[in-house]
Amino acid sequence: MIAAELRFAIDDLFADYGACLDNDRLEDWLELFSEDCVYKIVPRENAELGLPVTLMLCENKNMLRDRIVSLRQANEYSVHTDKHLITNVRVKDTTDDGGYSVEANYTMYQADNEGSGSLYSFGTYIDEVVHDGDAVKFRRKIVIVDNWSIPHMLSTPI
Amino acid sequence: MIAAELRFAIDDLFADYGACLDNDRLEDWLELFSEDCVYKIVPRENAELGLPVTLMLCENKNMLRDRIVSLRQANEYSVHTDKHLITNVRVKDTTDDGGYSVEANYTMYQADNEGSGSLYSFGTYIDEVVHDGDAVKFRRKIVIVDNWSIPHMLSTPI
Amino acid sequence: MIAAELRFAIDDLFADYGACLDNDRLEDWLELFSEDCVYKIVPRENAELGLPVTLMLCENKNMLRDRIVSLRQANEYSVHTDKHLITNVRVKDTTDDGGYSVEANYTMYQADNEGSGSLYSFGTYIDEVVHDGDAVKFRRKIVIVDNWSIPHMLSTPI
Repeated sequence: MIAAELRFAIDDLFADYGACLDNDRLEDWLELFSEDCVYKIVPRENAELGLPVTLMLCENKNMLRDRIVSLRQANEYSVHTDKHLITNVRVKDTTDDGGYSVEANYTMYQADNEGSGSLYSFGTYIDEVVHDGDAVKFRRKIVIVDNWSIPHMLSTPI
Repeated sequence: MIAAELRFAIDDLFADYGACLDNDRLEDWLELFSEDCVYKIVPRENAELGLPVTLMLCENKNMLRDRIVSLRQANEYSVHTDKHLITNVRVKDTTDDGGYSVEANYTMYQADNEGSGSLYSFGTYIDEVVHDGDAVKFRRKIVIVDNWSIPHMLSTPI
Repeated sequence: MIAAELRFAIDDLFADYGACLDNDRLEDWLELFSEDCVYKIVPRENAELGLPVTLMLCENKNMLRDRIVSLRQANEYSVHTDKHLITNVRVKDTTDDGGYSVEANYTMYQADNEGSGSLYSFGTYIDEVVHDGDAVKFRRKIVIVDNWSIPHMLSTPI
């Protein structure tokens, strides 16, 4: 069983991840990833069939940085706020180079400017977490989306 | 990083909070607050714009106590049961007088007497937790409601 | 307050429980129960009125094993995938023989093969957890379903 401090640090990482997205702090969100990170959003069906199609794909932190710049420009008129609930965090294994395979389930809700809200997405995070200085960060985050048929799911992190 | 015992105590406080409301144990729920507590329910938009309008406002424990008495009288014919899911608990800071700034996300579902259920509310708790004897209690709980346009959201704690 | 190791072990047990069901690993799921286990799914209303009607009832591990065999045969054409979010875990008490009364809240979402998803069920687990060799397992799991009127809720674990 992994040490309590590490479990707490990983729990905090997920809580920060959700809070950054929910409060539109995308630049802070970026800092939760290591430099050599991979970020993907994949429909569950594609993940299970091994198909390469993704809803979002950033193969390193610079791509993720570019993405945030694009979102900042596109989001000028954004009308939704998000709310992440992240649960069932499970540290599954250590990786060869001192990281950890971690999974968690999520649901994400959205509300519009009229205060009307609903379920937006649910699925699983298939992640690798690594030590990075004093912190832990995501080196890999694959968002497996169970309800992948939502039409406007293309452009934003989950 | 705060001590494991405190993290567990705060987690338990939130779990108790949800269980008391979900099981209609409002008197026990009241005991999770300190004497000088503030309890507010605020639409997210108002919170962000700094508007003072609240959906529920109790500025001390006596007001909260009165509220429960009112609810007991009004709820005589209540037909809903609640279910809270509270996640992403994050202890953000210590306060000047030995308390803690704590945030968490919630979703709350309701079912009626026919067993039909749906999402009722989702949002964020912006709280202060303080030591109170051997326990930790809420000194401040501000419920920020993302989906604030639900018509019958006025009268009950979330 | 119970020891950190036990809290973590119980958290992990719930995370495994969800992951096994969500990934259709029913045989692994079975191993999360002790030999003398009881597994029930009960509508909330029946639980509160003390009515004996259940949506699923297995009074020992062999019944649960048989159930899984049936599900494997019936599920040949299953088109749904599940996602469990389990939160508000609370260890309430020790039992006379060294176990623990544990409760938790859950929501479960389902998606179909077209990637369309929605809330399926929400409620509370009323469990007993016991030490079993080096592991902790469920000796009793009673799933109290708040939204019990869903028509196709009869045949599968929650």
